[in-house]
Amino acid sequence: MCQEYRRTPTDIPSALSPAADTVNGVTTPSEPTALLTDKYELTMLSAALRDGTAHRHTTFELFARRLPEGRRYGVVAGTGRFLEALASFEFDDVALDSVRGFLDPDTVDYLARYRFRGDVDGYAEGELYFPGSPVLTVRGTFAESVLLETLVLSILNHDTAIASAAARMVSAADGRPLIEMGSRRTHEHAAVAAARAAYIAGFAGSSNLAAQRRYGVPALGTSAHAFTLLHTTADGPDEQAAFRAQVDALGVNTTLLVDTYDITAGVANAVAVAGTALGGVRIDSGDLGVLARQVRRQLDDLGARHTRIVVSGDLDEFAIAALRAEPVDSYGVGTSVVTGSGAPTANMVYKLVEVDGMPVEKRSSRKESHGGFKHAMRLARPTGTILEEVVYPAGRPPAVAEAGRELSVPLVRGGDPVVDDNLTAVRARVVAGLMSLPWDGLKLSRGEPAIPTRMVPATIEEGPRQRPR
Amino acid sequence: MCQEYRRTPTDIPSALSPAADTVNGVTTPSEPTALLTDKYELTMLSAALRDGTAHRHTTFELFARRLPEGRRYGVVAGTGRFLEALASFEFDDVALDSVRGFLDPDTVDYLARYRFRGDVDGYAEGELYFPGSPVLTVRGTFAESVLLETLVLSILNHDTAIASAAARMVSAADGRPLIEMGSRRTHEHAAVAAARAAYIAGFAGSSNLAAQRRYGVPALGTSAHAFTLLHTTADGPDEQAAFRAQVDALGVNTTLLVDTYDITAGVANAVAVAGTALGGVRIDSGDLGVLARQVRRQLDDLGARHTRIVVSGDLDEFAIAALRAEPVDSYGVGTSVVTGSGAPTANMVYKLVEVDGMPVEKRSSRKESHGGFKHAMRLARPTGTILEEVVYPAGRPPAVAEAGRELSVPLVRGGDPVVDDNLTAVRARVVAGLMSLPWDGLKLSRGEPAIPTRMVPATIEEGPRQRPR
Repeated sequence: MCQEYRRTPTDIPSALSPAADTVNGVTTPSEPTALLTDKYELTMLSAALRDGTAHRHTTFELFARRLPEGRRYGVVAGTGRFLEALASFEFDDVALDSVRGFLDPDTVDYLARYRFRGDVDGYAEGELYFPGSPVLTVRGTFAESVLLETLVLSILNHDTAIASAAARMVSAADGRPLIEMGSRRTHEHAAVAAARAAYIAGFAGSSNLAAQRRYGVPALGTSAHAFTLLHTTADGPDEQAAFRAQVDALGVNTTLLVDTYDITAGVANAVAVAGTALGGVRIDSGDLGVLARQVRRQLDDLGARHTRIVVSGDLDEFAIAALRAEPVDSYGVGTSVVTGSGAPTANMVYKLVEVDGMPVEKRSSRKESHGGFKHAMRLARPTGTILEEVVYPAGRPPAVAEAGRELSVPLVRGGDPVVDDNLTAVRARVVAGLMSLPWDGLKLSRGEPAIPTRMVPATIEEGPRQRPR
Repeated sequence: MCQEYRRTPTDIPSALSPAADTVNGVTTPSEPTALLTDKYELTMLSAALRDGTAHRHTTFELFARRLPEGRRYGVVAGTGRFLEALASFEFDDVALDSVRGFLDPDTVDYLARYRFRGDVDGYAEGELYFPGSPVLTVRGTFAESVLLETLVLSILNHDTAIASAAARMVSAADGRPLIEMGSRRTHEHAAVAAARAAYIAGFAGSSNLAAQRRYGVPALGTSAHAFTLLHTTADGPDEQAAFRAQVDALGVNTTLLVDTYDITAGVANAVAVAGTALGGVRIDSGDLGVLARQVRRQLDDLGARHTRIVVSGDLDEFAIAALRAEPVDSYGVGTSVVTGSGAPTANMVYKLVEVDGMPVEKRSSRKESHGGFKHAMRLARPTGTILEEVVYPAGRPPAVAEAGRELSVPLVRGGDPVVDDNLTAVRARVVAGLMSLPWDGLKLSRGEPAIPTRMVPATIEEGPRQRPR
């Protein structure tokens, strides 16, 4: 029954797919990113250059020990932004000047010549991940690899947190479009990345204009209460004047915000001004389910049967799901999506797992990481439903009975990106990932990861035993 | 008794205060910020230019309806960054090209010539705020003021969320230094602002190098497990080699990370390598209280009585407070501070409150905002303990019995900043604010705002009645 409300919102530009097709996730780099890092990486570099260990060949692995509490899956995002940032990760004169005060001249010289020349493998952007998934693996000298720690973690922890929350909202919305409009509730540059991450996860677009310019994320929007209030005169409010101005400028297909004063009067004013061809109305406060039903009846009675209803105001995945049975055509989502809906970071870590071919790992309570360079595959039933994540020593995939799909792909070779994903391809991966989950995996309630992760150990003779000394 | 552990950490550069003294919070602007905004601001502008309302004189107010759940106060932060961003808020050719597709030529012409020429009043950066505090007030034409909505909210919502959480950690630490090291757990540019906000709130410094370069936030750091693991050889781990390399490069005053393998062995190795003059050891896992006591005993027994103990690992304000009785000298705080410790946004809003001198306000359930241009003062006892926040129509302060301090100060006049706070002054404001709170206000437990906010209404004849029509 609610199918009839799934009209295509016309605020969403028809150029949605073309825009995304032609704009790469990887765009031209601008300012150098080398100082977006922690001081200790540079002091460790200094110490390692001094004793010669800086040139050892290392493997660092980026992974999450666990998903945010109660989450059943995560969505990898930020890979494209990391590849973009990597291209501009170098120390310019200003950067060098600002580190000269605490570094020896040899280290400063090293930084002046620094470019990452190693390899990166990892999950393609948009893939699902689970606890222990080797999401990204950086291989190179210790010197070149340790410097990337903060940057790669910042980007992937942020973007993955947003995409993972957004994907839950997309599945809760069950096919109805979602608009990301939370720029105002997060750091001004994080907002741009959040718009991109939400779009990757299946949002129809974002209010953010920089995200459109940089990444081709469709820019969408309605209007604010301020615009209606602006049309106050000495005689009092004049909602019809505000609506008339908006329709004159943007056409009858626009979406009018009807809850500044009284919603029933607002809907009547909207149809009086725009006619029954009015594109949409937005409700931003009150009990959205009750109001949506009431407004739908009123619109239908007025003959505006094709006018869409957009709802917004403190929506998260649970509120979105609760509105599934209501005559809501699309959702505007702000705070909850840009703050990861309770999990603002993916809490991934970047750990040294191999030195000169020897697996290494930290040994202390609670924090196990597993040594060695690893790849992963995901096993599925013939129906496509996934069963298990298998993490194994790179180059030696275990024999498996079920169909297994390799998850680790080359991302960088010799310092140069070897993938150039567009966001349409990334979005398709998220769709496929959500389709592949067992039913339980899509539940919004707190639970265990949708599939288990099996770690295939390296054979014992491969590396030194890690005894304390 | 724990006083004896409050040594000055020598990882904190002695240049801390000078650096902060000489570097302004407001630095040279770089890239244009005009696209860090929502599409609807531009379409509203277009409609308002068309019907002439764009040139009405308006007042927008930025405020929080409530504090994050259970918080007793908030700390205003981001003002300096907003003034910096305002200076570069203009539409360059690339920005104009990217909006031409959905805007009429008159609007594009307006944007091409756009500079904000209005006034901004507000709370000085570092002031406490409470529900309803008029934190920032923007006055100018509708056109010039509405365009700033997203940018000003993004900056203040983010930075205020971080500073408000950080201040609780500072008071929980009771004088012991805190180091912000959460860059890796938030967006790479948000990390820089987070370092600045935590420093404002009283943190001793940050791991983030860009925050040092841009804002003079002291850059601090120890080393990572990766550095110890790097010194693995075919014979196994060699913690002493790692410590020796670090001491050789950074001197005995460095802080050695002792929990990669076995903490007791780690401490023994650290003192064996660096001697009893070792600056510090860091513990990053396990039960930090138990381990700090054990390590303190071991260090004292080894004669390293002045070696400091730095703890880190999932610390938030509650964990910091729980360690107050332990021999901990400083805290490294990551995820919790950069994500606002459960409240990643301050949830402030930007509302139109006055049009051509007439107070206006939205009238719908739950979301009251109060019309009119407002200022605020804070009343205090003779002891300095604050009693009440009084918000009143600007220019007409009410008669009050207690000492009242005016909170609203001019920040921008005719588009130009008229304040140039350095971070030392901002930090001093936070210290004074925390000192002024009633005892209950510093409790970490959930509670009500520390003081009530009293709204002095505008007299009835000042503006039109806001009847629905």
